[in-house]
Amino acid sequence: MTDVVIAGIGQTEVGEHWEIGLRDLAYNALHDALKDSGGLKPQALFVGNMLAPNLSNQAHLGALIADYAGLTGIEAITLEAAGASGGAALRQAYLAIASGMVDVALVVGIEKFTDKIGSEVEEAIASTSDSDFEAVQGMTATAQAALLMKRYMYENDVPQDGFASFALTAHANGVANPNAMFRKAIKAETYAKAEMVSDPINMFDVAPNADGAAALVLTRRDLLPSDWHASHPLVKIAGSAASSDTLALHDRKDILYFDTAQISAGKAMKQAEITLDRINFFEYHDAFSIYAALSLEAVGFAIKGRGWKLAEDGEISLKGKIPCATMGGMKARGFPGGAAGVYQAVEAVTQLRGQAGANQIANAKYGLIQSLGGPASTAVSHILQALD
Amino acid sequence: MTDVVIAGIGQTEVGEHWEIGLRDLAYNALHDALKDSGGLKPQALFVGNMLAPNLSNQAHLGALIADYAGLTGIEAITLEAAGASGGAALRQAYLAIASGMVDVALVVGIEKFTDKIGSEVEEAIASTSDSDFEAVQGMTATAQAALLMKRYMYENDVPQDGFASFALTAHANGVANPNAMFRKAIKAETYAKAEMVSDPINMFDVAPNADGAAALVLTRRDLLPSDWHASHPLVKIAGSAASSDTLALHDRKDILYFDTAQISAGKAMKQAEITLDRINFFEYHDAFSIYAALSLEAVGFAIKGRGWKLAEDGEISLKGKIPCATMGGMKARGFPGGAAGVYQAVEAVTQLRGQAGANQIANAKYGLIQSLGGPASTAVSHILQALD
Repeated sequence: MTDVVIAGIGQTEVGEHWEIGLRDLAYNALHDALKDSGGLKPQALFVGNMLAPNLSNQAHLGALIADYAGLTGIEAITLEAAGASGGAALRQAYLAIASGMVDVALVVGIEKFTDKIGSEVEEAIASTSDSDFEAVQGMTATAQAALLMKRYMYENDVPQDGFASFALTAHANGVANPNAMFRKAIKAETYAKAEMVSDPINMFDVAPNADGAAALVLTRRDLLPSDWHASHPLVKIAGSAASSDTLALHDRKDILYFDTAQISAGKAMKQAEITLDRINFFEYHDAFSIYAALSLEAVGFAIKGRGWKLAEDGEISLKGKIPCATMGGMKARGFPGGAAGVYQAVEAVTQLRGQAGANQIANAKYGLIQSLGGPASTAVSHILQALD
Repeated sequence: MTDVVIAGIGQTEVGEHWEIGLRDLAYNALHDALKDSGGLKPQALFVGNMLAPNLSNQAHLGALIADYAGLTGIEAITLEAAGASGGAALRQAYLAIASGMVDVALVVGIEKFTDKIGSEVEEAIASTSDSDFEAVQGMTATAQAALLMKRYMYENDVPQDGFASFALTAHANGVANPNAMFRKAIKAETYAKAEMVSDPINMFDVAPNADGAAALVLTRRDLLPSDWHASHPLVKIAGSAASSDTLALHDRKDILYFDTAQISAGKAMKQAEITLDRINFFEYHDAFSIYAALSLEAVGFAIKGRGWKLAEDGEISLKGKIPCATMGGMKARGFPGGAAGVYQAVEAVTQLRGQAGANQIANAKYGLIQSLGGPASTAVSHILQALD
């Protein structure tokens, strides 16, 4: 099989887009991605979305967005796997191209949280947990993460401020990202004084729900003109994998190990024929700082119980052993639900093209991106590679 | 590429399953399909669902159902394209197998309408239309179909009872289907006396919303043991295609032509290398009798404006030129939303295996199944073929 490549990227600013709706947000990202691709003609659209049927009273986004983007007639479908919807849309587009049935595929991740107020959003997000057993008890995603973090602190003897580096790193990296929701660095004392959201999760341990859309154009390498974007490397999808786990925490053998993060990353690395030491940066799913710590451990960058220490030691910063959240991550760029996984891909392509400006990782060749749904009930991992 | 085949089928009875929930329904269909496959080990699950986030307060069905079916760890994802969700799930599973990345894939279509009352269901279904412009005006799917039917009757000079044959045929075929919701034949006078739901759509012009789950096991032909199910033909997916159109009727050039039905069926036939005359039966998307008429025309079995006449002439019955709704269709088997397209596939496989009992189409070699979302805003078409 010829290589599957990402030939176009687009994104909107992440934030509170009160002024425009779902379809406009999606259009803006798609328009930019198609322009960046040099005008490739897509045959299929894969929409990653988490909650539009609940929050915007709008299902059937595939046909809606295809039509609004001027692509009426193409194949169009919506993928949902909670917070991993964006990663899942990328994976399905990848499979479609790899099958040889589709030559050019679009991916758009889209979420519009501001169509509803905060408590309604929390309730809708809770519907992605095991609703009959968790949401029905009043359990929210943040409460679920708080249980994980509390247990992690207890088992590994970690103080609250042992998690500060996740937020500090993300906010430091968000400063130079024009699409980030938060572009201000924070200090350790700001983290230490932050109000609790759901003890022990404070304001800086949780990523902000935000509106946004990001888009990708996928194709086969042999379909691109030889002079395509000669000024920077072409980016290949070298590995792609997904895995599922229980929705409910109470069904897990070990709530402090993200099986799916391990399985999907391992499969993606196997496909890419690389080992962990070859990966130059990791866009993890830091919807909560505890998720970031557990993801570092599951993928293998830290041993169990020591993900927080890797961060505290400065190893996830741009100059560290394994830079993470290089454009601000979910914490500072913002968490646009089903678009989050597509933002990761857009940011990874930016790094691998050498276009990340002040945040550029030197000689970045391989990037790992990982999109989680719930507490890693779904994980979708991709290895992106800069071709020579 | 080696053939992609359907190596297992399963289905629950369609009806009002007040006693069990989403996950149980899905489990029952999956269990039967896996058993029928002779115990193949799936690596991926594709869930077709339309409205669970709204009606059952449960999103993230992929991981939920995979875990509940004892398949924790496998890749799992939900596909949504309104009423075409089932067809879309089948198509994504097909692409996954065709890519060579997945060896055995499960498809499950699942819908649970009885978690809410009728008016709430109607409101949820309206969210699959262009919500900001249609649902917001009080437009329901049935009202939309009524506009189509009224215009069709006016333009083509068709009396109300010109549509009776769609319901009569479906109900006649439902009698011998043990999984059908309605197993009683109806008479022309019953149709003529039926109450109006949304003029000119009467009780027999609209399919009943119902609970149900249907499942498929897909794999590559070369992965099956040579003695697999030697007693009946193996069924191949010979063609697969999808297309999208505007959600809103007011954005269409011609509301009485289902472009997507034409495009997707045409592509599927091209891939299968057959012409229309080779198709032995057509499982159309008869959520409304007007949809059935328009589908017959778009696919090419009747000229524009004469689909109703084909039915009236008896040509869609089991002995007619192009048997439709052979196991009762959506009208008599019932319309389980995102599961409907998977029921079509299960029923087509049953025909092609020669296991359709009293409803068997003689020498059935090719079947066309078509799953629609909204008024053909999405269409997904598959050609299934009995191998020698």
